[in-house]
Amino acid sequence: MTQYLETLREPADLRRLDSEILEAVAKEVRDELINIGTEVGGHFAGSLGTVELAVGIHYVFDTPSDRVVWDVGHQAYAHKLLTGRRKGLRRVKKPDGPSGFLRRSESSFDVFGAGHAGTSVSAALGIAEAQRRSKSKAQSLAVIGDGAATAGMSFEALNHAGDLGARVKVVFNDNGMSIAPSVGGLHRTGHAREYFEALGLTYKGPVDGHDLKKLLPALTELRNAEGPTVLHVRTRKGQGYDAAEQDPYGWHATSPFDKTSGVRKASAAKPTWTACFADALQRVAHLDERVVAITAAMPDGTGLDRFAEKYPSRFYDVGIAEQHGVTFAAGLATEGIRPVCAIYSTFLQRAFDQIVHDVALQNLPVTFVLDRAGFVGADGPTHHGVLDLTYLRGIPNMTVAAPRDENELQHLLAAAVDSDGPWAIRIPRGEAPGARLDPNPRPSRIGHGVTLRSGRDVALLGLGKTVPVLMEAALRLDEAQIDAEVIDARFAKPLDVLRIAEAAKRCRRVVTAEDHVAKGGFGSAVLELLAVEVPDARVRVLGHADRFVEHGDVAEQWRSAGIDAVSIAETTARWIEEEK
Amino acid sequence: MTQYLETLREPADLRRLDSEILEAVAKEVRDELINIGTEVGGHFAGSLGTVELAVGIHYVFDTPSDRVVWDVGHQAYAHKLLTGRRKGLRRVKKPDGPSGFLRRSESSFDVFGAGHAGTSVSAALGIAEAQRRSKSKAQSLAVIGDGAATAGMSFEALNHAGDLGARVKVVFNDNGMSIAPSVGGLHRTGHAREYFEALGLTYKGPVDGHDLKKLLPALTELRNAEGPTVLHVRTRKGQGYDAAEQDPYGWHATSPFDKTSGVRKASAAKPTWTACFADALQRVAHLDERVVAITAAMPDGTGLDRFAEKYPSRFYDVGIAEQHGVTFAAGLATEGIRPVCAIYSTFLQRAFDQIVHDVALQNLPVTFVLDRAGFVGADGPTHHGVLDLTYLRGIPNMTVAAPRDENELQHLLAAAVDSDGPWAIRIPRGEAPGARLDPNPRPSRIGHGVTLRSGRDVALLGLGKTVPVLMEAALRLDEAQIDAEVIDARFAKPLDVLRIAEAAKRCRRVVTAEDHVAKGGFGSAVLELLAVEVPDARVRVLGHADRFVEHGDVAEQWRSAGIDAVSIAETTARWIEEEK
Repeated sequence: MTQYLETLREPADLRRLDSEILEAVAKEVRDELINIGTEVGGHFAGSLGTVELAVGIHYVFDTPSDRVVWDVGHQAYAHKLLTGRRKGLRRVKKPDGPSGFLRRSESSFDVFGAGHAGTSVSAALGIAEAQRRSKSKAQSLAVIGDGAATAGMSFEALNHAGDLGARVKVVFNDNGMSIAPSVGGLHRTGHAREYFEALGLTYKGPVDGHDLKKLLPALTELRNAEGPTVLHVRTRKGQGYDAAEQDPYGWHATSPFDKTSGVRKASAAKPTWTACFADALQRVAHLDERVVAITAAMPDGTGLDRFAEKYPSRFYDVGIAEQHGVTFAAGLATEGIRPVCAIYSTFLQRAFDQIVHDVALQNLPVTFVLDRAGFVGADGPTHHGVLDLTYLRGIPNMTVAAPRDENELQHLLAAAVDSDGPWAIRIPRGEAPGARLDPNPRPSRIGHGVTLRSGRDVALLGLGKTVPVLMEAALRLDEAQIDAEVIDARFAKPLDVLRIAEAAKRCRRVVTAEDHVAKGGFGSAVLELLAVEVPDARVRVLGHADRFVEHGDVAEQWRSAGIDAVSIAETTARWIEEEK
Repeated sequence: MTQYLETLREPADLRRLDSEILEAVAKEVRDELINIGTEVGGHFAGSLGTVELAVGIHYVFDTPSDRVVWDVGHQAYAHKLLTGRRKGLRRVKKPDGPSGFLRRSESSFDVFGAGHAGTSVSAALGIAEAQRRSKSKAQSLAVIGDGAATAGMSFEALNHAGDLGARVKVVFNDNGMSIAPSVGGLHRTGHAREYFEALGLTYKGPVDGHDLKKLLPALTELRNAEGPTVLHVRTRKGQGYDAAEQDPYGWHATSPFDKTSGVRKASAAKPTWTACFADALQRVAHLDERVVAITAAMPDGTGLDRFAEKYPSRFYDVGIAEQHGVTFAAGLATEGIRPVCAIYSTFLQRAFDQIVHDVALQNLPVTFVLDRAGFVGADGPTHHGVLDLTYLRGIPNMTVAAPRDENELQHLLAAAVDSDGPWAIRIPRGEAPGARLDPNPRPSRIGHGVTLRSGRDVALLGLGKTVPVLMEAALRLDEAQIDAEVIDARFAKPLDVLRIAEAAKRCRRVVTAEDHVAKGGFGSAVLELLAVEVPDARVRVLGHADRFVEHGDVAEQWRSAGIDAVSIAETTARWIEEEK
């Protein structure tokens, strides 16, 4: 079954094979990827679509001396398989397995890390320029999908490549899909040649990316080209597995499944935060027809696919274009619309300047819902959303909040779209607590926290997902005869000054906890407040350490950051003990 | 001389004129702009190039019911003049005059604020969609330059417009210039038609933007078009003033000048921070041939024009493409190059995600030099660089520093390019203190501050431009019998833990000051440190209030934020008095 794969330890082995054999190799790679998918799931349909491309590229290009930069990385499992990570893939995204994306630290064949879309041409152009400077004859190749090419930075990079006339090569992997079907005028017109040529690149193709007889000579021609050159390769997302071919969107990522029936193992029992947001947004939009929703190519990941079904005319997918999406929302808002931008915390980093310059400076009522805020577990450091409190709370006019449960979520969302200024609401990955929903969203009061438990020895402060954890920590502290107050601050900005100051005065000791870097986040906001209001108070800030955290289990990531209930209770008890 | 202008209070007056008369009106507008330039300076060459365009647009479009979104704003003085701000322009950029950019609060004709480039199509598309939703018949028009169109977000917006088929109109104001000459493959090929058509827009033009006989019918045709449509207008930056036509780059912005001779009033006597950086980079690059420099279309503003003269092959202008520029630098760094990205603090916000995802996560040695950090004075809130400490210090692996003088700048820069990880160095707008330079740059020690004055009552902590201010505040405190220590922390990250903790223990009181928002910045970093190390210490954080600050005089902005020497001394003395 895997007669060739057994012998292929690295791409150099592949390059020793006769090209006639590559089809058989590709078949083995695909079968193996399907088997791996059945066992462990992972990013599936995209990687099935690049099997021949990965085989062809490693055959034609002298990797790793030739640098190949894959965009995003979730379509690069075949590349991983061919570069020494075949066994590892059976543990993909597990703590002891390879990342679901690309990492320089994982393999010398991952010459540039990825996770966010649209970066490959920029990186490959930098590499090509460095090669030119050192008079290296090696190649630099970017492999970018048509979805990733909707990201503005890919245009910037192509435009720069065309200007420099650099010897950078680009494979335009055109499967008509982002995670969801591709959007954009370029996709609609199909004028890829005109687009690339207008930017000064030489265009070759299109070529069938599943037909190695055509693909290999095309790749060879690309390798031999002189200036900036793009090869247009048409592939099919999900190629070779029927169910995924029929529904490449649904099979973008998968849990383990039965190979014959295509039936997937059930995942979450309780609704996810994403699903709860989808519900809440529909309820809010039902009451306020000014509300529209915007996604940057993630209708499913953000839950907006469900909103789009109910309100198709009030839904926008702008492509992988967070910058534009945010300023587009600002434009809508100037005319009385109330846009809700649902963008993962880590991806909204792309639009930081637009949030500042186009939304907040003009104090426009745009609501940002940051899904996947905090540790995301298996997707790892490119996807953790752990900087948002810091990058948002410094911006004037912004309100920044996080709900502890789905009921609070609907109330915060109602308050946000009611407001005349910008709001950000962060929600984590995973299951929501399962709170009962009030019949209707009632706008939360801005800057008001809630005291969930009163105590006298220490005040535990948090917001969002940390709140139930603090409640559990308080129970553990009871056992140590420490009487802890628990406050759900709800808002990182504006803080509930009176409530927090009063608790600090009374308890004298305050512990803050957040699923976020400890530098500049919620805890720092509390420090800033108490330095003025209650300078006698002692404060311990608990949050993520100042380092990037690899992919792994979310619960373990919380433990390791010391923000799980056991750690919080232990840290608090030890601190109080030390100070006695 | 101004027979028409006297009668034109608003564009509706213009629209009552016969079209034959518009050339005479345009002549008066241009003369008036030149006169204003001689008197008060300001953004000059760009606005001379859009005189006929502004006249034509306000004549053909029913402003402000029709929405016209000007990109950037520094080319829109004619628009300002025609929309009730003729007298005001004689105070442009002064505290009591209009902004040099566009502001919604300034005029109902400024339908979307600007200052950063490339946002207009996004905003206009949002407005067009809102118009469609409300069944309004009004128009939405973006006016974007070819320079601004190198920004990726403009591509994202055009691509979305082509997808939606929205009734958005675009004037592509093509003068071959950003501030500096335009770069990019699109500029090089000149295939504007192919580019816009590939993205799904209808292309019209090109038309001579200074010939109203051709421009008016073209604008009328644009107004009457149905789907997303672009009109390509060729203009000349500096049109109508010889010196500016000859050197549109040099005349982008100007100080007051003599109209006949074109001789400009001398500005700064002492070298600016920008010039000092230009010198320092040349010295560092002379010693280390791995160093290359990158600008995002601001060679003059960042001082890199001087670097480019000396080292043309080690200089890159990537266009208004901060996202790409940063990831391009990361690609270079993977191959052993040491790139220095010189980008204004406020513009680097555009590349926040690339700093996190492509540079810091991979711990690549890219150095960011953030010019115009802090209050910038006359350019106002779109240009203040007051969030960088917050958005950078939360990122793992980053080193963040600010020099108090130009000698320290060269040493920090040497340390940065020597380092194996990412660095950010912030420098302010304006004159440097004029310190004597050591003969060679010697790498500063990471995370080491310096105690400039010892004292026992209070420790004053700052970095960068605040340090000499703290020294002056300490002298004032002497008069109040308060003995202040002054520490130049130099690094916002990593902090000089031992030095700061020791001073806090000894003095018990700490005052931090920064030219930056007080939320999440340097002072918060000190609070985080002292909460653990010296919980008894009392800390006062001085920095900008949580609001956007309008254009005005830098010294006044400092006073109003309470970070000038007088305010710091007074606040400190009052605080100590209260606590007695």
